[in-house]
Amino acid sequence: MLSHIKIVLVETTHPGNIGAVARAMKNMGMDQLRLVAPKTFPSADATSRASGADDVLAKAGVYDTLSAAIADCQLVIGASARCRTISWPELTPRECAGQTVHNPEQQVAILFGRENSGLKNHELDLCHYLLRIPCNSQYSSLNIAAAVQVVCYELFVAAGVEQPLAVGDKDKVPKASAQQLESFYGHLHETLIDIGFMHPDKSKSIMRRLRRIYNRIQLDTKELDILRGILRMSQDNQGK
Amino acid sequence: MLSHIKIVLVETTHPGNIGAVARAMKNMGMDQLRLVAPKTFPSADATSRASGADDVLAKAGVYDTLSAAIADCQLVIGASARCRTISWPELTPRECAGQTVHNPEQQVAILFGRENSGLKNHELDLCHYLLRIPCNSQYSSLNIAAAVQVVCYELFVAAGVEQPLAVGDKDKVPKASAQQLESFYGHLHETLIDIGFMHPDKSKSIMRRLRRIYNRIQLDTKELDILRGILRMSQDNQGK
Repeated sequence: MLSHIKIVLVETTHPGNIGAVARAMKNMGMDQLRLVAPKTFPSADATSRASGADDVLAKAGVYDTLSAAIADCQLVIGASARCRTISWPELTPRECAGQTVHNPEQQVAILFGRENSGLKNHELDLCHYLLRIPCNSQYSSLNIAAAVQVVCYELFVAAGVEQPLAVGDKDKVPKASAQQLESFYGHLHETLIDIGFMHPDKSKSIMRRLRRIYNRIQLDTKELDILRGILRMSQDNQGK
Repeated sequence: MLSHIKIVLVETTHPGNIGAVARAMKNMGMDQLRLVAPKTFPSADATSRASGADDVLAKAGVYDTLSAAIADCQLVIGASARCRTISWPELTPRECAGQTVHNPEQQVAILFGRENSGLKNHELDLCHYLLRIPCNSQYSSLNIAAAVQVVCYELFVAAGVEQPLAVGDKDKVPKASAQQLESFYGHLHETLIDIGFMHPDKSKSIMRRLRRIYNRIQLDTKELDILRGILRMSQDNQGK
């Protein structure tokens, strides 16, 4: 899954950032990391920030040059925060995901440049597209791991591989039926008259409001049981 | 823009993470940061990782308790990676953005818990929704700044999308605030004990279920008045 998409970091300075990138990738089900001339790697800082994603670091490819790192890729996309004088075809992260995720035969490289200066022009020349993350134009430089996180998140969402940690869907309680709800409203109406909250003659508009409240909740049958239990107890108290 | 949405960090341990969160927020045009009992703040680590977003740090609100931090908020959303035994209504970051961005009168709090243990159950009880970031189910714990980055990115992207025309918003009754809701739950708790529905010692799980019911619908203040009127009348009856 997503193994045809490679995250390529070019001359990253801080090893902590490499670790944070590995974590961001693994969180989104990705593990193909390539490093071009990292300043310090491997490093304890990287492993510590990877926080359990050290398997991604361990199998990261390390290359001397960018062209070696992307040699097997058919599509090359360069992340960029800067305005370029030459306008290049641009993709948002969502568009990038749309173009890459469902085409597993195509090997894709997504490049992230140096922390301070990004990708150089001759590196951008190797790219088919620039990737521009939408952001505050007054303060547009994302941390490199944050940028990777956003891009990998969009890839993951597009892949639809989201496996929600199913909170016991099988145990799901069925919603109350219209009939059960009507019976609840009848019981509620009766109780509110019993406790003196409403007069039988003047109950219409207040009941309408209460229906608006409880209809909105889409009560399940278990919840309905609780509410009816409260009504019963309230009536019993009247009977005392 | 987006100033009605507050990012609330609960008992963050590492000050560097607070700085990274400020940077992630500012990158996405957000500046409303609230800190609940941070372990170390202010701190040189935070300022260094904020990397130019120190203005966001400088005006961050610091609170002793979560309830104080969210008292003025009508919608409370808690980020969570864990499976919960009680299923809570969930939003993805994109759904969260859809519900919050174009409704600037509604103050929103998005909560992020401790680095190691997230939000506690009694903190989740204050939430209308859980926020679940889609991710690798085998490795699902995002760094807190990475999680904030993804959420703020979705908010920023949604804000750039044109606003649908609101139909008859002017007659809208304001939503109940977290403080008003808490006061309602207190009153409900008291009443249920009064009428003998609950024992004071064994009320926790039932109150949690009731919160789940009423949190789900975002009561407005008029509706809350009706419900509290019923509780009052019910208690008066006990007194007879």
